[in-house]
Amino acid sequence: MQEDDPFGIRPGEVAVPLPPAFDAQVYFIGRIRTPWQRREDCPKNARESDAKCTIEIDARWTAALTGIGTCSHLLVLYWMDRARRDLVLQAPRHYGEPRGTFALRSPVRPNPIAASVVRLVGVDGTQLSVIGLDCLDGTPLIDLKPYFASTDAVPDAVVGWHAERP
Amino acid sequence: MQEDDPFGIRPGEVAVPLPPAFDAQVYFIGRIRTPWQRREDCPKNARESDAKCTIEIDARWTAALTGIGTCSHLLVLYWMDRARRDLVLQAPRHYGEPRGTFALRSPVRPNPIAASVVRLVGVDGTQLSVIGLDCLDGTPLIDLKPYFASTDAVPDAVVGWHAERP
Repeated sequence: MQEDDPFGIRPGEVAVPLPPAFDAQVYFIGRIRTPWQRREDCPKNARESDAKCTIEIDARWTAALTGIGTCSHLLVLYWMDRARRDLVLQAPRHYGEPRGTFALRSPVRPNPIAASVVRLVGVDGTQLSVIGLDCLDGTPLIDLKPYFASTDAVPDAVVGWHAERP
Repeated sequence: MQEDDPFGIRPGEVAVPLPPAFDAQVYFIGRIRTPWQRREDCPKNARESDAKCTIEIDARWTAALTGIGTCSHLLVLYWMDRARRDLVLQAPRHYGEPRGTFALRSPVRPNPIAASVVRLVGVDGTQLSVIGLDCLDGTPLIDLKPYFASTDAVPDAVVGWHAERP
């Protein structure tokens, strides 16, 4: 049974050939420490969990944290390194009907970069304590940004297909 | 005069040696078309501009747009391919005092990935019309995600150093 294989293809899903070459490269700048060792243990939605997670920045980048403690919230970009990259239509088990990859927050996408908003609860040297992540322990970090409500918060935004799902 | 060189180093700025190797690779999945050909023409803040921009997705990924038209807002990730990557402290001209890279939204960062929230105003095949971008014409696109107010909107978030700047 492949149904529980998160990286198998389900009925209705479509894969495409990947481009022949990559275009740019990223550095992992740290790791995310969470309580979740297996995919099935991760919260389905970050809002379901109050778990405190730790973002560990590599020592090389220590000075880049200057001033970050004044931010109440951060935008965290991380690399979902266990995901396939070639699906354009996906049928997550809890949604049924296939949806386009760019209409989903699935880890399966051409560039497996997740973006999560977290609440910053503490800074200790190169370690940040945050609330709001739902990823596996050891997930590679690729960026941290200050969250600006003026440009990043759109409280009335709507995802129509999600609002109307049965 | 290097003062106007956006990628030169200003007084108070600090660069570090980059890691010896990259850790992962990205595909450019399309391009962003904007009215701005030169960096100095770009709006300083996306909220300053009502300009309609166009996101052009490569044909390979067309099916991945399925359902995206039901989203009022998207999170757009793009690659700021003209930025240096080795600064940990930066002194943007309009802020004065140096700040850590991870406390800034500057394009200069270890992984030059920008995250912008846009309003989706139209979908025509592989072209999306959006409002809310401030990047150069031709900027490479790396991801599109539906914006979920439930997890992405934090209207009361604060960036202390920014709120308190003179």
